[in-house]
Amino acid sequence: MSETAAAKNAVVLLSGGLDSTTTVAIAQAAGFTVHALSFRYGQRHSFELHCAQRIAEAAGVARHVILDLDLSQFGGSALTADIPVPKDRNQAEMEGAIPVTYVPARNTVFLSCALGWAETLNTGDIFIGVNAVDYSGYPDCRPAYMQAFQRMANLATKGGVEGKLPVTIHTPLIDLTKAEIIRRGVELGVDYGLTVSCYDPDALGRACGHCDACQLRLRGFREAGLKDPIIYQEDQNR
Amino acid sequence: MSETAAAKNAVVLLSGGLDSTTTVAIAQAAGFTVHALSFRYGQRHSFELHCAQRIAEAAGVARHVILDLDLSQFGGSALTADIPVPKDRNQAEMEGAIPVTYVPARNTVFLSCALGWAETLNTGDIFIGVNAVDYSGYPDCRPAYMQAFQRMANLATKGGVEGKLPVTIHTPLIDLTKAEIIRRGVELGVDYGLTVSCYDPDALGRACGHCDACQLRLRGFREAGLKDPIIYQEDQNR
Repeated sequence: MSETAAAKNAVVLLSGGLDSTTTVAIAQAAGFTVHALSFRYGQRHSFELHCAQRIAEAAGVARHVILDLDLSQFGGSALTADIPVPKDRNQAEMEGAIPVTYVPARNTVFLSCALGWAETLNTGDIFIGVNAVDYSGYPDCRPAYMQAFQRMANLATKGGVEGKLPVTIHTPLIDLTKAEIIRRGVELGVDYGLTVSCYDPDALGRACGHCDACQLRLRGFREAGLKDPIIYQEDQNR
Repeated sequence: MSETAAAKNAVVLLSGGLDSTTTVAIAQAAGFTVHALSFRYGQRHSFELHCAQRIAEAAGVARHVILDLDLSQFGGSALTADIPVPKDRNQAEMEGAIPVTYVPARNTVFLSCALGWAETLNTGDIFIGVNAVDYSGYPDCRPAYMQAFQRMANLATKGGVEGKLPVTIHTPLIDLTKAEIIRRGVELGVDYGLTVSCYDPDALGRACGHCDACQLRLRGFREAGLKDPIIYQEDQNR
């Protein structure tokens, strides 16, 4: 955490997952005073919000806001509606279609709220932990989308229009593989034992090991040559 | 309301004000099945949400969703924080600075949520009742901003990316004066007695007559040669 006079505020989207947790650490290492933003958006399990709270505390962020926003009123995704989460898909299946776990306009909604908070904090710096390598078919994780959002944001806000507070959407993970993200986080002291990635954890919060998110995470730790510290329903370090 | 086989879904942002109410009527007249979206976003008075509900009922929309989204957690505006609403400003004062009643990133947040709902409704048609003539200094009411939002939205969504459901942000009021909006609404049978515009109504919901929104509304009715049917704290039809 930066406490220097030169410290600038930043809003960092924090889901409680591996990527966003690494992004908090990267923003802090770059000298930003982090304001972490999470959402209670009608996800089927709230375990990730408990994780987000513990991560925000461990990182010593300036403030952590959990915003209620019930996107499940609109339906349309396995993460918020009652559709089975796909399991044990191979790489081609993951990369092929846009997955049913897609939440309509989720990153757009989350970045928009971050933009509102950033403006009240007198900053234009927003961090989001998307990455294009493992993006798994989500349209709102691609660089072209992020550039278009930044352009729109600079026309949307008082600071952007007046040129005093240009909006920058920081995507420090966008070109990294999962293994590279994990190595960077470990260098910065991130405790990945606090994070959750699984789309379908059990009642104890243990990861399923078979959904797309678990598979990408496990492969990342294997490729980084590290053991994943979280608990799975079955031993994954085989 | 359109009930024909060719009817297309549209999401219309409905604040309960004069402009958004007219926009609902215009969307219906154009053959769209309207899904109206309002927000409980931490505004100081919830009277406008009562109005929005009555307007949605009167218009016979397919569905009206009021989404809870407490932007007041971020602070930063007279509409959500405890800053006095400016009164009796002249035209130059209204047009000069971005007003304190500006809510950071409000239209961006609202349009983003509308985008999520539109996608689950299998449509790309979104209506918002902004207008550039009376926009009163809000950056997120200008045509350049609307175009940038539409471009971003077409990169954000499954439908936009695949080209099957291009997103269109309809702004039917953008070039109209307040008087022209009122005349158009009256032609379409809008009951403006159900609407509210005031930034600072009293406990009975009566408009103050002095804030920017009241002044623009009253001038619009005068220029349209019509009597404003809502009740003011003092008689405004002098």
